[in-house]
Amino acid sequence: MNLALPVEPLNKEAFAPFGDVIERADAQRLLINEGTTERFHDLAAVDVGRDGGHPLISIFRATPRPRPIAIRMMERHPLGSQAFYPLAMHDWLVVVCRGAEAPDPSSLRCFRPTGEQGVNYRPDTWHHPLLVLQPQDFLVVDRGGPGDNLQEHWFGAPESGAVTAIIPD
Amino acid sequence: MNLALPVEPLNKEAFAPFGDVIERADAQRLLINEGTTERFHDLAAVDVGRDGGHPLISIFRATPRPRPIAIRMMERHPLGSQAFYPLAMHDWLVVVCRGAEAPDPSSLRCFRPTGEQGVNYRPDTWHHPLLVLQPQDFLVVDRGGPGDNLQEHWFGAPESGAVTAIIPD
Repeated sequence: MNLALPVEPLNKEAFAPFGDVIERADAQRLLINEGTTERFHDLAAVDVGRDGGHPLISIFRATPRPRPIAIRMMERHPLGSQAFYPLAMHDWLVVVCRGAEAPDPSSLRCFRPTGEQGVNYRPDTWHHPLLVLQPQDFLVVDRGGPGDNLQEHWFGAPESGAVTAIIPD
Repeated sequence: MNLALPVEPLNKEAFAPFGDVIERADAQRLLINEGTTERFHDLAAVDVGRDGGHPLISIFRATPRPRPIAIRMMERHPLGSQAFYPLAMHDWLVVVCRGAEAPDPSSLRCFRPTGEQGVNYRPDTWHHPLLVLQPQDFLVVDRGGPGDNLQEHWFGAPESGAVTAIIPD
């Protein structure tokens, strides 16, 4: 069984089933501040208000996992979107899949954003926790508030080491 | 009359009357993602929901103004907070002041954030539009929605060239 997950470049069309690509390309541009600033406007559908939620701004400091990276679980946030934008100019990795009650491993996809591409996962989108190729910080906009906003699904028992897919180096 | 505005380092205490400093220092830290990610949690009081507003994520691409930088106007957003976080590791400048109906020029302050410090202006806080020392991008979280969310105040007629303060080089 071939566990290798093809690594695809990230673009809006390919990522549309999962959320937004946050990037300057194809954005609405507004020239403001006496012409000194260009605003690339409204790049993500932030959806964090349901069930008494509110937006949070946080910084995530991510460190790489052992290579090759093994996909053993996925998670999702039923109550809010979650946006990541890199604070250093390095490629990183995004793994997503479809699935209603549980993630469907046959639908796994791996994208490789550049250091000038962020993503915004729509609520309820199965995704792997943050994956980086070197230590990297991100600005994160997600939801705070009441309710259980984290669902994790392990493809095998966490202690079994079961691997569903591998991202080739 | 001395128009030179002292340039101060940015810290949470000094900036408290105007909003939040978005930085890792002194943040609540949560270790997540099997210990591979550190979350510096909830760094800004995002306040964008009033009067039917919602959060926007945008990118601002700023270019420097002529030096020395002259302060001739201030602006504020009565309906929402506005957060800026730098996407490149360069110092930049923040100019704020007090004032109810109009900005009070005697209360002007200039801060010099590092490339690892963002700010979040509280609603109704007088601030100068984005000031950079070299071309620099920012991730911006502010308010979309109905209503007039921009008030500008020029200290003299825009065409008069009247200058209220100068940031020394």
